Amino acid sequence: MAGYSGTKDQYAKRLRRIEGQVRGIARMVDEDVYCIDVLTQISAVTKALQAVGIGLVEDHLNHCVVDAAKASDEEGREKVTEAAEAIARLVRS
Amino acid sequence: MAGYSGTKDQYAKRLRRIEGQVRGIARMVDEDVYCIDVLTQISAVTKALQAVGIGLVEDHLNHCVVDAAKASDEEGREKVTEAAEAIARLVRS
Amino acid sequence: MAGYSGTKDQYAKRLRRIEGQVRGIARMVDEDVYCIDVLTQISAVTKALQAVGIGLVEDHLNHCVVDAAKASDEEGREKVTEAAEAIARLVRS
Amino acid sequence: MAGYSGTKDQYAKRLRRIEGQVRGIARMVDEDVYCIDVLTQISAVTKALQAVGIGLVEDHLNHCVVDAAKASDEEGREKVTEAAEAIARLVRS
Repeated sequence: MAGYSGTKDQYAKRLRRIEGQVRGIARMVDEDVYCIDVLTQISAVTKALQAVGIGLVEDHLNHCVVDAAKASDEEGREKVTEAAEAIARLVRS
Repeated sequence: MAGYSGTKDQYAKRLRRIEGQVRGIARMVDEDVYCIDVLTQISAVTKALQAVGIGLVEDHLNHCVVDAAKASDEEGREKVTEAAEAIARLVRS
Repeated sequence: MAGYSGTKDQYAKRLRRIEGQVRGIARMVDEDVYCIDVLTQISAVTKALQAVGIGLVEDHLNHCVVDAAKASDEEGREKVTEAAEAIARLVRS
Repeated sequence: MAGYSGTKDQYAKRLRRIEGQVRGIARMVDEDVYCIDVLTQISAVTKALQAVGIGLVEDHLNHCVVDAAKASDEEGREKVTEAAEAIARLVRS
């Protein structure tokens, strides 16, 4: 079971919406919409994606990382290192 | 005509790919894929989206902003201010 | 003359403030201040730095890029490409 | 004791270096250095600051969050929520 299993439906709904927004950006480009308006939409979709990422980080910490830490200090440290690397990728994207 | 009209097809192709990647993330969530792998994919899609944004900024500067600056100093400044605000949103997303 | 020469004093003031804030973060670490409070300050300083960056981009576009575009199309495109690469680094930092 | 107490000296060294880099940016502005070179340095300093932030997140997770989770599920969840909010601020800065 994934750390986010308890909130899967909400993530599914948010991702479907983001998918539709990306399709919307493609339509804007197809219709020669003014660049700035397309850029505004790209920033909005990027934020929505990152918000999903942050939610997944929280679920992962609450379940996978905490469970590993309770199992053994070593497992806990491994999971934290792995999580910190994923967080770093989010920060740099 | 939008500043990006000359490269519309490439943007359309990249956006279709991003749309497919978002659908792929939704499938990962549906299949309870490990959180870290989903997060890695979210960072990749965020970067791809931002790369489209940076391309649009370059096209916008090359066409809309430069044309406005050649028309009048005032129009040029207005377009630069508008572009800087869009760039700020990209930086903060 | 740099594109930002007209607003140098304001940048100097903002950068001095940011320098002081970084020193403040070092002091927090020295005094074992709670991690979350240090992280909050790091985010604030990062935002302040990026705001200086966005201001410099706007000045650069208004002066260096527009002047080059008025001199010749080729010079204009070169300056826009250079600016877009700097903007990309800001977006990814 | 803060979660980062074990690595305080390294953070102190990195922060002193970042402070010096910010002073260096101020000097560049004072000497009318070309905008793009100043922007490149701003991106480098922003990345260095965020790297310190990510290190602090990892230390915080390894100590404060794991210790709280071992004390009680409720304390663990509170610390995770607090950490996720700090991570969100880092992602958005």
